[in-house]
Amino acid sequence: MHTPWDHRYAQRTQRMGSSAIRELLKLTEHPDIISFAGGLPAPDVFPVEAFGGACERVLRKQGAQALQYSTTEGYLPLREQIARHSERYGIKVTPDNILITSGSQQALDLIGKVFINPGDLVLVESPTYLGALQAWNAYGAEYVTVPMDEQGMNVDYLEEALRTGPKFMYVLPNFQNPSGVTLSLERRRLLVELADRYGVPIIEDDPYGQLRYEGDHLPAVVMLDDQYRNNCDLCYHGNVIYLSTFSKILAPGLRLGWVIAPPEVIRKLVQSKQGTDLHTATFTQVLAHEVSKGGFLDEHIKTIRRVYSERRNVMLATMDRTFPPEVDWTQPEGGLFLWGKLPVSLNAAEVLEAAVEQKVAFVPGEPFHPTGGGHNTMRLNFSNATPAMIQEGISRLGQVLSANIPSKVLS
Amino acid sequence: MHTPWDHRYAQRTQRMGSSAIRELLKLTEHPDIISFAGGLPAPDVFPVEAFGGACERVLRKQGAQALQYSTTEGYLPLREQIARHSERYGIKVTPDNILITSGSQQALDLIGKVFINPGDLVLVESPTYLGALQAWNAYGAEYVTVPMDEQGMNVDYLEEALRTGPKFMYVLPNFQNPSGVTLSLERRRLLVELADRYGVPIIEDDPYGQLRYEGDHLPAVVMLDDQYRNNCDLCYHGNVIYLSTFSKILAPGLRLGWVIAPPEVIRKLVQSKQGTDLHTATFTQVLAHEVSKGGFLDEHIKTIRRVYSERRNVMLATMDRTFPPEVDWTQPEGGLFLWGKLPVSLNAAEVLEAAVEQKVAFVPGEPFHPTGGGHNTMRLNFSNATPAMIQEGISRLGQVLSANIPSKVLS
Repeated sequence: MHTPWDHRYAQRTQRMGSSAIRELLKLTEHPDIISFAGGLPAPDVFPVEAFGGACERVLRKQGAQALQYSTTEGYLPLREQIARHSERYGIKVTPDNILITSGSQQALDLIGKVFINPGDLVLVESPTYLGALQAWNAYGAEYVTVPMDEQGMNVDYLEEALRTGPKFMYVLPNFQNPSGVTLSLERRRLLVELADRYGVPIIEDDPYGQLRYEGDHLPAVVMLDDQYRNNCDLCYHGNVIYLSTFSKILAPGLRLGWVIAPPEVIRKLVQSKQGTDLHTATFTQVLAHEVSKGGFLDEHIKTIRRVYSERRNVMLATMDRTFPPEVDWTQPEGGLFLWGKLPVSLNAAEVLEAAVEQKVAFVPGEPFHPTGGGHNTMRLNFSNATPAMIQEGISRLGQVLSANIPSKVLS
Repeated sequence: MHTPWDHRYAQRTQRMGSSAIRELLKLTEHPDIISFAGGLPAPDVFPVEAFGGACERVLRKQGAQALQYSTTEGYLPLREQIARHSERYGIKVTPDNILITSGSQQALDLIGKVFINPGDLVLVESPTYLGALQAWNAYGAEYVTVPMDEQGMNVDYLEEALRTGPKFMYVLPNFQNPSGVTLSLERRRLLVELADRYGVPIIEDDPYGQLRYEGDHLPAVVMLDDQYRNNCDLCYHGNVIYLSTFSKILAPGLRLGWVIAPPEVIRKLVQSKQGTDLHTATFTQVLAHEVSKGGFLDEHIKTIRRVYSERRNVMLATMDRTFPPEVDWTQPEGGLFLWGKLPVSLNAAEVLEAAVEQKVAFVPGEPFHPTGGGHNTMRLNFSNATPAMIQEGISRLGQVLSANIPSKVLS
């Protein structure tokens, strides 16, 4: 007889559904369409040749090791490399503070698995990263949100949110996905103090920190937390779990991210990862270590900054020229995204339908708001399309917006 | 102030502990010790040179694609390759039946995530694969067990176990880890019928199916289920979720496994995987596809069979010669493991302590029994050590056993 699978799924799975927006976004994968909907790096900047050399050296010098099982914590030379790299940004850590994950998304999943009981509150920015919500919904998280302004999370609302007793707070301080906004230094310090006062851990997600195109680098929250505690130890023991990734600085197809946390938290994440996927692919870890050696990664990041900074400038200039005055948008100092605000009378999902007809696409902002709102917001990616495509696509979108705004505002 | 992390962990994490046996096994990683404790493939059989050629071709022909994000379902040409490969073993499936996972361990995790509510019963063989228990414990699974004999799961006890209402049953039909035993054809058919009668899905875990060293290949449970349903469609719609992996036939350091299931189940697993790690590394998928092409994998599997078969023979012959008559063991027709039974008066964990002093190690069998028992059992791996090491290590173990048995039996 037929197996009624639907009735076998766990409660957490019954809640998962395919969204209307996801269905709409499938249309945007058509090659005809200029899409600003994804979050893909530019394939033109992948260092294919350097990978070729690294593959050859790895297989010649340590082929059997690179193809064998390895430890759950991750390849030690890669963890040491990350520790040295972090130190240059003022984050003092030892390999015991570091876990390699199968992309940053897995770090979010493991954090959910280790911390979240069904019904637990998680404090997030609104809007926030959709992938984090997706990871934590599976563990039954509920959300308390703090609104954003042009300086990042609006700390005036933070203390009230902390008093709801969240399991942890989640913040993307640099060029936030989706808003493109950066948390100011003053607010970072306040965040550390308030989190400590209420005993609430901070998850700091920093995939884009090194992709700054203007202004000064701001210290990571994990570093400010370490300073705040006057920690003189080389090993970090504070209140922050910091996440980053090779996806935006090397290649997302490797699925390599890392977690920095106190050693006791790393040990718990390792136990959890063991049952989840044993360990991250040895081959990609050894390869990433090999290709990053000898200052290559630093030089490569300069290339990425140059390419993305140009694309951001082209997008902003074209928006200035073609978007109607009723639309506002952020001016990101780095990262991959900017954020648009339409008049409240408009629904971005409806605008997307009209845009797809004109062969251009973006992501409506509503799903990034876990407690609702944002129906008139949109996220635009500027890293993937070429400058010429950006000009063309944004001009088309400007026309769509202009065509929609007057009638909508009058209605 | 200090963050009391211990009190922040979720209920599922509080239950996780480090086991005494795991601590003991850490000792066995010392290079002095001949260890039969792990489950590692022989590094000598990794096709390092073939990987070198494949890396070069992939980066030259499709470098940007191999380094970019890709779909959660997995690289389509690899799924097509797996579909063709499965068909040769009589399992007729389309790519819609296939999901690529980050190793088979991730398939176990995703199945737990999608199906298990806290307290749900899972029907397993006793002993069973430790990694499955580890994956499902995190979702609050409880277990009902069916004992094994030399024909695999003892079906006389199966119907009673099915009547407890398990969420699914989990079976490793070929050269089971840990016991090395193979489920007979007659029992496979009965399994399919009983599972259908009670409406309980089957998870078939088959990492070693192609590593048979003697006897005839037996059809997979998923294939028998398809026959039982008289399915004429090319697409599989039955009651089995089948798992396999590249870890034992190509290289575990790639972390590549696959799931075969009805499309509706694949879709649910895909949704769940999206929040877990977005997708499995594109680079390793494209690489595995490239290296396996043109019949290479078939030839390579023949090499593995020859090497492992010799090692199994050496281990069995040395056991015959050096083990005391009070010890019994299985005669696996394939796979990586065999299973020993000591007199009930002995505790294998205590024997391990004595063995480590003599620089030889194995895994005590008790943890493989989720509902208790097996204190006098042990698992021995024969794939990793060279024949000379196997002879030396098994001889040492024979001495340890001989030294321990008389006094223990008399006491």
